[in-house]
Amino acid sequence: MENTDPVVDTDVHNAFKSKTELLDFLPQEWHRQWAASGTGGGVYYSPVGLMRRDAVPPGGGTPGNDPAYLDEHHLSPHGIDYAILTGSGVLGLSLLPDPDYGTAIAAAYNDWLAATWLPASEKYKGSIIINASDPVAAAEEIARSAGHPDVVQVLMASAAQQPYGQRFYHPIYAAAEKAGLPIAIHPGTEGRGIAGAPTPAGYPTRYFEWHNILPINYMTHVNSLVSEGVFEKFPDLTFVAIEGGIAWLPHLMWRMDKNYKALRATVPWLKRRPSEYIRKHIRLTTQPIEEPDDPRHLGQIIAMAGAETMIMFSSDYPHWDFDNPRIALPPLDRDVRTRIMSTNAVQLYGLATSGAGA
Amino acid sequence: MENTDPVVDTDVHNAFKSKTELLDFLPQEWHRQWAASGTGGGVYYSPVGLMRRDAVPPGGGTPGNDPAYLDEHHLSPHGIDYAILTGSGVLGLSLLPDPDYGTAIAAAYNDWLAATWLPASEKYKGSIIINASDPVAAAEEIARSAGHPDVVQVLMASAAQQPYGQRFYHPIYAAAEKAGLPIAIHPGTEGRGIAGAPTPAGYPTRYFEWHNILPINYMTHVNSLVSEGVFEKFPDLTFVAIEGGIAWLPHLMWRMDKNYKALRATVPWLKRRPSEYIRKHIRLTTQPIEEPDDPRHLGQIIAMAGAETMIMFSSDYPHWDFDNPRIALPPLDRDVRTRIMSTNAVQLYGLATSGAGA
Repeated sequence: MENTDPVVDTDVHNAFKSKTELLDFLPQEWHRQWAASGTGGGVYYSPVGLMRRDAVPPGGGTPGNDPAYLDEHHLSPHGIDYAILTGSGVLGLSLLPDPDYGTAIAAAYNDWLAATWLPASEKYKGSIIINASDPVAAAEEIARSAGHPDVVQVLMASAAQQPYGQRFYHPIYAAAEKAGLPIAIHPGTEGRGIAGAPTPAGYPTRYFEWHNILPINYMTHVNSLVSEGVFEKFPDLTFVAIEGGIAWLPHLMWRMDKNYKALRATVPWLKRRPSEYIRKHIRLTTQPIEEPDDPRHLGQIIAMAGAETMIMFSSDYPHWDFDNPRIALPPLDRDVRTRIMSTNAVQLYGLATSGAGA
Repeated sequence: MENTDPVVDTDVHNAFKSKTELLDFLPQEWHRQWAASGTGGGVYYSPVGLMRRDAVPPGGGTPGNDPAYLDEHHLSPHGIDYAILTGSGVLGLSLLPDPDYGTAIAAAYNDWLAATWLPASEKYKGSIIINASDPVAAAEEIARSAGHPDVVQVLMASAAQQPYGQRFYHPIYAAAEKAGLPIAIHPGTEGRGIAGAPTPAGYPTRYFEWHNILPINYMTHVNSLVSEGVFEKFPDLTFVAIEGGIAWLPHLMWRMDKNYKALRATVPWLKRRPSEYIRKHIRLTTQPIEEPDDPRHLGQIIAMAGAETMIMFSSDYPHWDFDNPRIALPPLDRDVRTRIMSTNAVQLYGLATSGAGA
């Protein structure tokens, strides 16, 4: 006798013909986010996009994909002599569960950089990218790629599973110091992949809130690098904090120096106050520069921190919150302005001040 | 035939007669930490202890356990008229996996506070403690305990699994607003229990580094409270950031205001700039106050933030990094100093300015 009980499959996936099918059912204000990222993507969705739409080159594609057009659109009109290249869309490679894939992408990026952008113009100086999640492999990649004469920096994601002072990462610093290159970090992957939550209290709700709070990760790394004695162990190392804000410097320096008075017995490898290591070994880029209602306040903050030698101009071209070098900086003493627009970067990256490029 | 193969138990726990047995084998510099915390304890071990040793009352026990001696040792000699009590060693209750145990401890603490300290002197005003991990239960506890005339505040741990602006916590704010009480947060449990890592990059290495970076959790919560529109939904709510630093205010205000210009469409419930909500609804306590080399810098920071009405003196008695009210504050305008030492707290907590206690 045949069994007539109905058979039930309790997991069958029905699909959209295309993502846009859902738009008829979704309130208007969510349409762009759904189209751009669905239920995933870069975790935090920017409603204004991440790119300047006017930065698409004549050949089309991603903004910033054409060395000649980038010069014509950004460097030349703004009187910029050198651009430190920081890549686009690849820093997530160190937040992937698989370290080997991330390391392979980093090496491929570095070879692509040397094959395409660095030969295109003397104005372009490169950052080689590393996978900080595998520090031994990253050190090997530095040794392999650092020799190119137009490579001036090692770059890694600011998002990380451990504060960057911890000894897990020291092979990277040994390799960078040996190669004579600064290490830089760049934000954007906070909260993605294996990075964990982007704040001590978990996940902020949306892009505005996430972007507001990115600098706390920079404070974390600076605090860790100094506290762990990285700059005593690697006295020639410079650490560049790209796009992480600058006005938090006085607060962090003062708090660290105060605690150092009472607790220095627990960090016996430190020979100077924390603020002295910060001033000597940390560099910060300007964009997105803080904009007080009274623009003189930013110069006062720089003076309080003694940060005149620490800060370097950056535009973040072609990202949405680009800072125009003609108007980005607030009123500053001429000497401080020159340091920020030129001297600090020229010295750090060993750039020629005359001849091609300059 | 008997089996003569030896029998192996592969997990047998051998024990110390007492913890001190290990000291003969451990280098001297780790002895105090091993004695105090073994391999666990409060995660981050302070080598200077957490308490002033001179604050033990004549009857012995934990510093700060005797209302009469606390007055005699701290309030009277320093000319302090009111002390806002914040408890000792209980805020971890909201970082426990079991919310019911935490809520029970909170209620017991609040009843103990009303039975012991609040009747002891007009000088003592109480903070009732809540378990923020169970916001509905916390709201019920506020309704139950807020009626005592000497209760002036609701207190919870700054360590949390979600930023405090998120709607999970809104029942707490509804209850506090209804009771007419500010909500305060206090640090110390960052990185403990279910709180998760105390930085966006995981766990700092030791107490010095952990203590340096505590304020990033405060920036996270202030950013979240404003961004989520908590102060539009609860317009009479004040949020008190105890012991989280103050000199980071200009940075956070400027960054939030700048992003608000570009991204305000994503937070349509905000009707003012973020800095305006911060100035109106956030209060900060002074200890541990930042100590710039040039003490005038702190007053300049307060002026930049427009924070003259936001800051309230605190000593953190009897903790190790106590700030003495006679010398803690840097040079400030007389009016600003009076606001910090008196007016701001008198207004927030509704304290009498004459008669008993004052």
